[in-house]
Amino acid sequence: MVSSTATALAGHGTAVGRPSVWDVPLSAGKKARLYRMLYQFGPKNGTLKILPLDQGLEHGPIDFFANPDSLDTDYIFRLAIEGEYSAVAIHIGLAEKYYPAWAGKVPLLLKLNGRTSIPSGAQVLSPLTGTVEDAVRLGADAIGYTLYVGSPSQVEDIATLNEVRFDCERFGMPLVVWAYPRGEAIEAKGGQDSLYAVDYAARVAEELGADIVKINLPKGVSAQNPKPYNTLSLSVQEMADKVVRSAGKCMVLFSGGGKLGDDDLLEKVEICMKAGATGLIFGRNMWQRKWDEALAIGRKVDTILQRYGIPPPRG
Amino acid sequence: MVSSTATALAGHGTAVGRPSVWDVPLSAGKKARLYRMLYQFGPKNGTLKILPLDQGLEHGPIDFFANPDSLDTDYIFRLAIEGEYSAVAIHIGLAEKYYPAWAGKVPLLLKLNGRTSIPSGAQVLSPLTGTVEDAVRLGADAIGYTLYVGSPSQVEDIATLNEVRFDCERFGMPLVVWAYPRGEAIEAKGGQDSLYAVDYAARVAEELGADIVKINLPKGVSAQNPKPYNTLSLSVQEMADKVVRSAGKCMVLFSGGGKLGDDDLLEKVEICMKAGATGLIFGRNMWQRKWDEALAIGRKVDTILQRYGIPPPRG
Amino acid sequence: MVSSTATALAGHGTAVGRPSVWDVPLSAGKKARLYRMLYQFGPKNGTLKILPLDQGLEHGPIDFFANPDSLDTDYIFRLAIEGEYSAVAIHIGLAEKYYPAWAGKVPLLLKLNGRTSIPSGAQVLSPLTGTVEDAVRLGADAIGYTLYVGSPSQVEDIATLNEVRFDCERFGMPLVVWAYPRGEAIEAKGGQDSLYAVDYAARVAEELGADIVKINLPKGVSAQNPKPYNTLSLSVQEMADKVVRSAGKCMVLFSGGGKLGDDDLLEKVEICMKAGATGLIFGRNMWQRKWDEALAIGRKVDTILQRYGIPPPRG
Amino acid sequence: MVSSTATALAGHGTAVGRPSVWDVPLSAGKKARLYRMLYQFGPKNGTLKILPLDQGLEHGPIDFFANPDSLDTDYIFRLAIEGEYSAVAIHIGLAEKYYPAWAGKVPLLLKLNGRTSIPSGAQVLSPLTGTVEDAVRLGADAIGYTLYVGSPSQVEDIATLNEVRFDCERFGMPLVVWAYPRGEAIEAKGGQDSLYAVDYAARVAEELGADIVKINLPKGVSAQNPKPYNTLSLSVQEMADKVVRSAGKCMVLFSGGGKLGDDDLLEKVEICMKAGATGLIFGRNMWQRKWDEALAIGRKVDTILQRYGIPPPRG
Amino acid sequence: MVSSTATALAGHGTAVGRPSVWDVPLSAGKKARLYRMLYQFGPKNGTLKILPLDQGLEHGPIDFFANPDSLDTDYIFRLAIEGEYSAVAIHIGLAEKYYPAWAGKVPLLLKLNGRTSIPSGAQVLSPLTGTVEDAVRLGADAIGYTLYVGSPSQVEDIATLNEVRFDCERFGMPLVVWAYPRGEAIEAKGGQDSLYAVDYAARVAEELGADIVKINLPKGVSAQNPKPYNTLSLSVQEMADKVVRSAGKCMVLFSGGGKLGDDDLLEKVEICMKAGATGLIFGRNMWQRKWDEALAIGRKVDTILQRYGIPPPRG
Repeated sequence: MVSSTATALAGHGTAVGRPSVWDVPLSAGKKARLYRMLYQFGPKNGTLKILPLDQGLEHGPIDFFANPDSLDTDYIFRLAIEGEYSAVAIHIGLAEKYYPAWAGKVPLLLKLNGRTSIPSGAQVLSPLTGTVEDAVRLGADAIGYTLYVGSPSQVEDIATLNEVRFDCERFGMPLVVWAYPRGEAIEAKGGQDSLYAVDYAARVAEELGADIVKINLPKGVSAQNPKPYNTLSLSVQEMADKVVRSAGKCMVLFSGGGKLGDDDLLEKVEICMKAGATGLIFGRNMWQRKWDEALAIGRKVDTILQRYGIPPPRG
Repeated sequence: MVSSTATALAGHGTAVGRPSVWDVPLSAGKKARLYRMLYQFGPKNGTLKILPLDQGLEHGPIDFFANPDSLDTDYIFRLAIEGEYSAVAIHIGLAEKYYPAWAGKVPLLLKLNGRTSIPSGAQVLSPLTGTVEDAVRLGADAIGYTLYVGSPSQVEDIATLNEVRFDCERFGMPLVVWAYPRGEAIEAKGGQDSLYAVDYAARVAEELGADIVKINLPKGVSAQNPKPYNTLSLSVQEMADKVVRSAGKCMVLFSGGGKLGDDDLLEKVEICMKAGATGLIFGRNMWQRKWDEALAIGRKVDTILQRYGIPPPRG
Repeated sequence: MVSSTATALAGHGTAVGRPSVWDVPLSAGKKARLYRMLYQFGPKNGTLKILPLDQGLEHGPIDFFANPDSLDTDYIFRLAIEGEYSAVAIHIGLAEKYYPAWAGKVPLLLKLNGRTSIPSGAQVLSPLTGTVEDAVRLGADAIGYTLYVGSPSQVEDIATLNEVRFDCERFGMPLVVWAYPRGEAIEAKGGQDSLYAVDYAARVAEELGADIVKINLPKGVSAQNPKPYNTLSLSVQEMADKVVRSAGKCMVLFSGGGKLGDDDLLEKVEICMKAGATGLIFGRNMWQRKWDEALAIGRKVDTILQRYGIPPPRG
Repeated sequence: MVSSTATALAGHGTAVGRPSVWDVPLSAGKKARLYRMLYQFGPKNGTLKILPLDQGLEHGPIDFFANPDSLDTDYIFRLAIEGEYSAVAIHIGLAEKYYPAWAGKVPLLLKLNGRTSIPSGAQVLSPLTGTVEDAVRLGADAIGYTLYVGSPSQVEDIATLNEVRFDCERFGMPLVVWAYPRGEAIEAKGGQDSLYAVDYAARVAEELGADIVKINLPKGVSAQNPKPYNTLSLSVQEMADKVVRSAGKCMVLFSGGGKLGDDDLLEKVEICMKAGATGLIFGRNMWQRKWDEALAIGRKVDTILQRYGIPPPRG
Repeated sequence: MVSSTATALAGHGTAVGRPSVWDVPLSAGKKARLYRMLYQFGPKNGTLKILPLDQGLEHGPIDFFANPDSLDTDYIFRLAIEGEYSAVAIHIGLAEKYYPAWAGKVPLLLKLNGRTSIPSGAQVLSPLTGTVEDAVRLGADAIGYTLYVGSPSQVEDIATLNEVRFDCERFGMPLVVWAYPRGEAIEAKGGQDSLYAVDYAARVAEELGADIVKINLPKGVSAQNPKPYNTLSLSVQEMADKVVRSAGKCMVLFSGGGKLGDDDLLEKVEICMKAGATGLIFGRNMWQRKWDEALAIGRKVDTILQRYGIPPPRG
């Protein structure tokens, strides 16, 4: 049995170097597109602050009740531009209809698969809703793919990701993997937000070729997590450190999840960036706030991100 | 708990702007074809009145007993032309055999998938019956795809729609999505005609790239609808307003459904158009009426549609 | 409740115009090939008398015990030529090995899918056994596809038919659909030979693009048929009239089914042709008879068909 | 009820003409390759004696215990050449690694699908292990495909065979179908070695385009066989005659099956050839014997085959 | 019953010739790439010592707790180079991000399929995570495919391997098959590490076209193994001899499996090489040791491998 965190994480708890686009061997196309998101938009210091709007597909318009303005996708774009986000992450339908009006003013991260949450999630899998070629045509700077790590449908899921990855390589399109632990086996082993689950998901994304992985901040260790996870006693910061390390040379985006209070949100940002994340992706936390509040909290997030930048090498 | 409709729909209940083909960024091919349906046929004022005939596949010839003349597809085309419809929506077999005689006289909306209602609908899914390339060859001005929102088969359904959508983009062919909530999960959450279900379906169509979405008018709110839907107390008009808003820049077609009395039908048209719909699609309500009655009620529909037009910009 | 046949079939029971290849808008390739079957072979008057031999695959050699000569496919071709049939309908294996010796002397209708009857028919579906390109290469004048209307496998079945149909259009190859109601849902709604089932099947074939549909003569109305079918009281002739009308501009071939006595067979022919069928397809009724008997009954069939011809327009 | 064999098999029990490659309309490529196997190797008189070695995949190395030398595939090739076989039938792995050393000295029959016998055979199906293009590249003179007639997986099996068949036609590659009745439905109808099952399998192979069909000698008639099979009283010779006739213009290879004593083996050869088979395929019966014994029994087989030759037409 | 090992393995227990890349007929591309791994890297004497790192996908980061440095893939590459390994075996994600920095300094064996161990393994199957074309682009010298021999998913597994194998032939890329017996049928027949299971797996890999097969050392004979396996009484060395023979002209890599003590590990190497293996693949046994210990044990492994070399022919 592993009795001390210090032993268990020897080498894990030290300061983690954030992977830089300069150090990771990426194709010119991937670098050029990532450069736009990292240095020409958003905080412009090598960090990312992304605004997603895929909840209309994933959850339905139900999420827009909190702030009915958010039902209007143009509102989201205005928020992204006024709030200086690194990119807006949306599905093909919104991209086709709304992005042309804002093209060039904010990068597009085209989400390439999704599903409704209506039917049973037992075999959870997100079918494709767009193609990498669509992303190229629309001038997107990255694409997003949701992988349900541990789902009984993993065979089809990984195979589809492989095809998307291949096209990303072909077109020089950065690949962002939403790595979500899901399924009854994950539940039996401690749950989707346990350290074991998130840590595994981060690594899977790296192994399968993600350039950026989007994960949730682990909520803790479960007694049902496999050894030695279930013996660890870690702070949230230590857990964040660990999962960032497990993502290796993948940049890490932590998701904001459901709406948080201001203090909780900013504390989360600090923990994530300190752990070595490249940035955060905040949806409901932003567009479920009213316009002014969203801009205000966004500025506070920026203040934190400014302390974690990686300057580009001189040209 | 959300106690008042006013609060819940802040910003939803206001007058809704109908999306115009001039404002939505569509390709030249899509615009040219939509222009024909919106301004050169039917009411010719930017609204749509479409005559579908896919019931022979979906329900069998059983629907033609009410008016045996309707069994003859040429009768349908005569009705569409005499009644000045915006388009006839049919499957490939009818299009190949009957449309050539009427080509140019009324636009063709080629329905690209369908099924019989004979086997169990538990895994409901409509296989392809034609291709976008067929639609191009036949001179069609739009294609139609039925998506069963919430079906356990949604993985295959969304993936197939994605391929059709991609081809529509390639050929400049407008994509009309029949967005039908279906399946046991929908039933458990309040039923296919509840506000929650139709509202979700409208949004899914927009997210997945529909240019036009065909939905049913919601019948009400169910106690089983998820919060806050189940707390709402809305009129039919308010529900129509809401689902049109959820469709965003998708134009909305409301379906006529089963045969209605004249007054109910006209009231429905008024509600739908007032909500911001682009038009209606009436099948059984037209061809189950006798010829003269169908023409007469069609003229009354036109009278309403004339009040909701969007003139084209001057050339 | 619909109490009188006259009312129920208003417009259905009148003399039915048989669709003519001259009136249906078909491509030049389809017309040229149909012309051969309709006017250069068989009765040569626009009707069809087709000899199928797919029972070796569908039922096994068991069907050949009644007349062992029929086991020899050359015997079938001799019968088709001597008996002046419009075409021989066989699968790829027989076509490759036997048709070259008879090429040009009788048209080939290449059956493109089939199955053995050995395993359970619960999910009944016929996989492809050949391609439209094979049919072109072999000089065939039509292809045949079996669609099991109402099968739980309809999604795969319709999707496969769609691909075959597309290739038929591409190559100008007439498409004959064997439209067979099958499956537990059909049984629960009155059975595969009930009017409801056959009527639906005929329409489905037309909707999906068949040029010719092969159906069985309905055996009657079942109490389990949906309304208003279950209220009808129709003669066999009226049922035949109805299903031919439901096939619209598809030409109809009635199948002979199991072996009948001479009088029953000829009565069936008369009913079918009077109803507006283009012809019949007789397998076991011909090759399970001895050579002389088969030729004799075939001549009597011809006599009837001669009374139902549609002359070609003058050149 | 059919009471006498003479009646039941009228026309079946007479001397059966063996299909000749000269009479069957095959492409030049198929003829050239079959000519090599029929006249330039093996008995060289139009008959076939084939040595298969796919048991390592189908059964595992377990079959090699009887004669450990057989584990070495070069030993099999030496046996085939020294014993003057018409071809060696192996999968891609053995063909790639061993055939180059023996290329030209004995024809290669590349087996294109197979499976291990480890998991349940309830849905028995053999996936592809090679392609027709591989066979062309390796200089093979035929390919082999195992079809499990009557398996619940027949839809996928027949569809795959169809693709292989199409490629065989394209490349002029002879198609040998291993037609094996299998599955619970076959068991319920009398078993995989009953006359009904083998007879059906032979016909299916012909219908689906086999040039040569490999079947087992039927072991008898089962009371569970469908009528009239279950009423027949046939000798082994009569059963062999019947199944060869059911294969029509497909040449028939009978399989040797498990190891037999010398007398039984030679009696089997005599029956098969007398029935009109083109040859036999002996695996375990040869390489489970020791070298000298295998050669000796092979020579005795040759003696029988020499009496059943079909000379080629003069050039 | 087989009572003596000598009888059972007549011809199996003698000295086994290790297949040499010079003797096996491989394409120039395969030879050139294998030459690099066999003679220009690692022991450089025709043997292989490979360092795999796919556990992050297969097991999750859990395997890295024993030596946290191993979480850093650059550490693995440094170990491979300093320890003079023949190749590093990793998935696409690690290859893209880490291999460029070490390209040319150690060969890359790109693992092309994998899965997480989270969901049930009842239908165990590894989807593709990369393509042979990726391997070519990345300058890999071999690819790896995991085949679960005996899995209920073998139909899909073998079919996928067939496509990978075809591409390997096309691109001259050596194919390494991880041949793992798995599934309930294997468990019922004695288990995945029993002689029967491993012996069958080795042969399957050869039959399906592997150039190199990776297997585990059998742990013994099970009473549930089929006859005659269950009657054998073999030493570990005899079992190793047997499975290497069953792999024929496939080179054999034995896997190290979980971490062993030094003496056990070296004894294993000696047994494997004596049996005719081409080499070993050690993951956890190396990177779960500390750096110095891993290098030290690696050198001792080299000492053994040096005694089993096959010199290249003079140029």
